[in-house]
Amino acid sequence: MANSKPPVTLESLNPKVLECEYAVRGEIVSVAQKLQQDLQTNPGSLPFQEILYCNIGNPQSLGQKPITFFREVLALCDHPALLDKRETNNLFSADSIKRALMILDQMPGRATGAYSHSQGIKGLRDTIAAGIEARDGFPADPNDIFLTDGASPGVHMMMQLLIRSENDGILCPIPQYPLYSASIALHGGTLVRYYLNEATGWGLEISELKRQLEAARQKGIVVRALVVINPGNPTGQVLAEENQRQIVDFCKKEGLVLLADEVYQDNVYAPDKKFHSFKKICRSMGYGDKNVPLVSFQSVSKGYHGECGKRGGYMEVTGFGFEVREQFYKVASVNLCANISGQILASLVMSPPKVGDESYDAYLSERDGILESLARRAKTLEDAFNSLEGVTCNKAEGAMYLFPQIILPKKAIKAAEEAKKAADAYYAICLLNATGVVVVPGSGFGQVPGTWHFRCTILPHENKIPAIISRLTNFHTKFMDEFRD
Amino acid sequence: MANSKPPVTLESLNPKVLECEYAVRGEIVSVAQKLQQDLQTNPGSLPFQEILYCNIGNPQSLGQKPITFFREVLALCDHPALLDKRETNNLFSADSIKRALMILDQMPGRATGAYSHSQGIKGLRDTIAAGIEARDGFPADPNDIFLTDGASPGVHMMMQLLIRSENDGILCPIPQYPLYSASIALHGGTLVRYYLNEATGWGLEISELKRQLEAARQKGIVVRALVVINPGNPTGQVLAEENQRQIVDFCKKEGLVLLADEVYQDNVYAPDKKFHSFKKICRSMGYGDKNVPLVSFQSVSKGYHGECGKRGGYMEVTGFGFEVREQFYKVASVNLCANISGQILASLVMSPPKVGDESYDAYLSERDGILESLARRAKTLEDAFNSLEGVTCNKAEGAMYLFPQIILPKKAIKAAEEAKKAADAYYAICLLNATGVVVVPGSGFGQVPGTWHFRCTILPHENKIPAIISRLTNFHTKFMDEFRD
Repeated sequence: MANSKPPVTLESLNPKVLECEYAVRGEIVSVAQKLQQDLQTNPGSLPFQEILYCNIGNPQSLGQKPITFFREVLALCDHPALLDKRETNNLFSADSIKRALMILDQMPGRATGAYSHSQGIKGLRDTIAAGIEARDGFPADPNDIFLTDGASPGVHMMMQLLIRSENDGILCPIPQYPLYSASIALHGGTLVRYYLNEATGWGLEISELKRQLEAARQKGIVVRALVVINPGNPTGQVLAEENQRQIVDFCKKEGLVLLADEVYQDNVYAPDKKFHSFKKICRSMGYGDKNVPLVSFQSVSKGYHGECGKRGGYMEVTGFGFEVREQFYKVASVNLCANISGQILASLVMSPPKVGDESYDAYLSERDGILESLARRAKTLEDAFNSLEGVTCNKAEGAMYLFPQIILPKKAIKAAEEAKKAADAYYAICLLNATGVVVVPGSGFGQVPGTWHFRCTILPHENKIPAIISRLTNFHTKFMDEFRD
Repeated sequence: MANSKPPVTLESLNPKVLECEYAVRGEIVSVAQKLQQDLQTNPGSLPFQEILYCNIGNPQSLGQKPITFFREVLALCDHPALLDKRETNNLFSADSIKRALMILDQMPGRATGAYSHSQGIKGLRDTIAAGIEARDGFPADPNDIFLTDGASPGVHMMMQLLIRSENDGILCPIPQYPLYSASIALHGGTLVRYYLNEATGWGLEISELKRQLEAARQKGIVVRALVVINPGNPTGQVLAEENQRQIVDFCKKEGLVLLADEVYQDNVYAPDKKFHSFKKICRSMGYGDKNVPLVSFQSVSKGYHGECGKRGGYMEVTGFGFEVREQFYKVASVNLCANISGQILASLVMSPPKVGDESYDAYLSERDGILESLARRAKTLEDAFNSLEGVTCNKAEGAMYLFPQIILPKKAIKAAEEAKKAADAYYAICLLNATGVVVVPGSGFGQVPGTWHFRCTILPHENKIPAIISRLTNFHTKFMDEFRD
């Protein structure tokens, strides 16, 4: 039986793939890349000289420097022959050499080029567990740690484990980081939306969780898990401890797995807010390993380190029975292991230099320099957004984003409809074409129907922020003038 | 509605996960790890002093040293500040410094810590495409390259794209590397087996492909793709050019995607054999991008480099239309990008030092030392297996494995049944417990029913091979004596 059609067409692909959307790298990024090429091949052809990327949480692409100590250790582990050379003592800090030796000794045969245990190198998991204990004040078990290539593969793995069919639902915040909607679509489950309350600073309300859970159950959906992103992406809020306790009790009562995206745990800017891990909250409520199935995701891509390209991260998995855990291990083992540099970096992030270490002062100054600058950028951009006609913007208490709401004139909404775009996507494309500023439309994250937003990172270099604000302000004024009802 | 049962039990996990099996890291490895611990905590408690791992293609875990040039470049890219230091010229080869500078210049802002383009850094894809052209003598397009965290995620991605339901089938060799069966199970498709002919050195026969394809179609299975592993895993054969042409024509005629696992392309030991990529075969037959959808997988984990822990690799994707390729890109983008060190290493593997470079002689000597030693180990083990009662072993023409057949006495098969194990799994566990030698039972790879095999890597250090052979020979003799019918 010979085929005349091509063997693979859109129609013959897995329909789950077709359904999946991922706005952070969607149309807006393709247009930006095209404009960037135009600027290179034909300088002066556009009304701006450079593209200003405010679309993705990728700090080092915008000039943020890596933490020196982390990179020293990585270089020594990549090329351990350096450790035998005299010159190395001049080139590397004493504690980076000591740490590299310790890490190498944790690997059988010092083999940084070997597959590790499928959960990650045991010694690195010990270090991470100790870091979690120091953070939370409660014990952590290295056997609960699964090292991953960034947080995303961990999220995919949990969706793969939990979703059996479209009758299985996952409760996700709206707005959400679209990894969740994409992963749920790819695994054929149902996204069950709960809305964050913009009026209370993107508050997560238990009454809303209950309402959406009941509504889903009435449609025959078996809700398996609740996703909480804290600090929030794209919304930037940091949950209050009391709120977290309510969430834990809700999951316990309703039999839900709590999927806690805690990748922004080091990114808290509001002086009255503090990050508390859900694991700490559970333990402080007296709940042990039997009470609440909880997965906490951490990544080397965020925080002050921003090592996105290293693809490192881990999940801490507690509250599942032995047999279920065996299945987690099996799925991890099909992918062999996370990359070793990412594994090492995950251990460094959870155990940075300490007082008395040669690198400590430099580390502290690099870390605080980045975090303080991020806080300043967040505040400057927030104020700028709030000064625009029809725009309101909640504070970024944490994470790396602002998510302002725009009340768009009816004429602009109509123009967007004619261009077959969501109104905020239309706004974002107009903004990009006019100014080179790249933001992601709110429709890519989900929002209350009829409201319009965009996500703007706080990551461009501090000396670019004035240009972003003035370009955006000029554009916005003209846009509103053009479309005002 | 409160739950009293735990929210997640084996019964409430995705049944596709439960079905998936991955023998390479299965029971035998757990037992080996347990024995290893026993040896550490209680030396002298076992009839052997060390575990000899012959179960997994993980060369550096067994003492193989990384290629110096590769690691120099990685270290410099991880810590580019080294490039500004005088001492660096004494510590690193001139061409590693030059290469690192070139690679850094290919990254916007020299940011090795940033997410890259979802297909990988463009400059590295250019280098890889040039390497493919040099290998094949036919053009390669950097836009066809998708960099991946090792070959496995690429295979998973293709299964995710192609498999819609259990009615979609993938033709896989038997014996096969169990990544394929595991990935097909996880994505809910049907494994359509075709048997390699052990009697002709694991020959891949078109008549067998046709027979199995027709049988599957008669059951209502839509066969989407053909997997070919060349050089073979676990079987070690290297396909002849004429055979490859037949396979290409078969795929073309039957409308199948050709999934070419070519990760062992640098591992060819038989002097009369040569690796030919399927892309080269297609182009040499006059088939262009419109004729045969082809995905070629390459990895940094195998070859002479054996950099498993770095999780680098790529797939070269040709013969799909634009719209379908857009979907590949979308799925890649949901995972952001492959880790940058792995990306860099993939480019180095496809473009190692050349004549005249400072590192060339050292590189050549390291590479050839490894490959020549692997060839010797393969031959020594092959001869040893063939000298055992009831054992026949095909030559390892390539890859890293031998896959001997054992004719087991009926009594042994009965003992295995009583132990609720496949007969070769029983043999492998007895071997491990008696000698510390770890091999993977043939039943984990698939085999003609009623035949029994095991997979033994050729990777243990050359000075361990005599111990492996003598322990295995002693064990085998006793085992056969014990169970002889």
